[in-house]
Amino acid sequence: MKIEIENVLPQDIEARSFAIITKELEQEGICLPAEQAPVIKRCIHTSADFDYARNLLFSEGVIEKALHAIRNGASIVTDTQMGRSGINKTRLEGYGGKVYCFMSDEDVALAAKEKGTTRAVASMEKACALEERLIFAIGNAPTALIRLYELIREGKIRPELVIAVPVGFVNVVQSKELIRSLEDTPYIVARGRKGGSNIAACICNALIYMLDRS
Amino acid sequence: MKIEIENVLPQDIEARSFAIITKELEQEGICLPAEQAPVIKRCIHTSADFDYARNLLFSEGVIEKALHAIRNGASIVTDTQMGRSGINKTRLEGYGGKVYCFMSDEDVALAAKEKGTTRAVASMEKACALEERLIFAIGNAPTALIRLYELIREGKIRPELVIAVPVGFVNVVQSKELIRSLEDTPYIVARGRKGGSNIAACICNALIYMLDRS
Repeated sequence: MKIEIENVLPQDIEARSFAIITKELEQEGICLPAEQAPVIKRCIHTSADFDYARNLLFSEGVIEKALHAIRNGASIVTDTQMGRSGINKTRLEGYGGKVYCFMSDEDVALAAKEKGTTRAVASMEKACALEERLIFAIGNAPTALIRLYELIREGKIRPELVIAVPVGFVNVVQSKELIRSLEDTPYIVARGRKGGSNIAACICNALIYMLDRS
Repeated sequence: MKIEIENVLPQDIEARSFAIITKELEQEGICLPAEQAPVIKRCIHTSADFDYARNLLFSEGVIEKALHAIRNGASIVTDTQMGRSGINKTRLEGYGGKVYCFMSDEDVALAAKEKGTTRAVASMEKACALEERLIFAIGNAPTALIRLYELIREGKIRPELVIAVPVGFVNVVQSKELIRSLEDTPYIVARGRKGGSNIAACICNALIYMLDRS
């Protein structure tokens, strides 16, 4: 078998990838809402999984609200160091936001141990003390998402956006449905089992890049 | 709709997830080779994508060779900080190995600029100077994989294992086929477009955990 490498300049690879994704979506007869398309396409770009064309759910007006939040300095709280690692922090800092992940913090480990809960849960509780605008990007732990849901219901935190994309097989589907049931919380949810820290990070980046281009 | 949260202790979630994956594979009539099963199941666990039951390819005896390498202190070179972030470094260090990612290094940025290439390519070239046993875990850049292929062919580097799982649409499929064409290089390849830094990291972790249990 002859293996032929396509001659594409490094700086053109992303545009070429998005063109391929766009074409294949058209061939499948899938038409994406214009404002959601950059987010959906970037999830497909990150995973090569076209399921994201169908499983991403957006609350009403969420893109506009998310861009407004980032433009006004919102910070992002993630539930994994991997998610934190994947977010374009330089660009986000340009708008005044930071990225937090409390999972490795000593006080979080201690609080989780004392309360007999997970560090993911303790991380969400720690985030309540932050006084800035907050976006939550949860790509791993359904327990984080469930606790976040409770904290929102209790009025202890009011996120600008919840990116609810944990991946897995135990309480993952349910945790996302809880977030969808909230009335006043803007969300982007990957319905079903799929998601991940990479998906959480890439949704953040898609939003940041939309703002860079607007 | 009533949302029912399953009552599973945090420490039991992973085992429960793997049990669900095992059951669903059986229901699909998919029988995995015993020594490869922990790697394949962990990729499904990480992505909730059962495609990994079919697209992972293993060179002959690769699991045994990989475990031997890790047991003898092999280090891991990744092509993203995100991949580096996801690998269980504490456990790996227990066997004497480290995790390297050169992508953010100043000398790599400079070399890439001077040679008009990508930092991923310059990273692979930098890795040639390492004198320890090396496993490459490439989850993002096909350019890294293509350069690694060339360096192996030129006899400049001799990896104990190449985890070839970049994700995407441009030269990704081809770069993986190049690795498969090498005769004396042990590989784990995700055939096709799928993969990612999360998949690269989880394959490393699957191997480390196999060793922990052996």
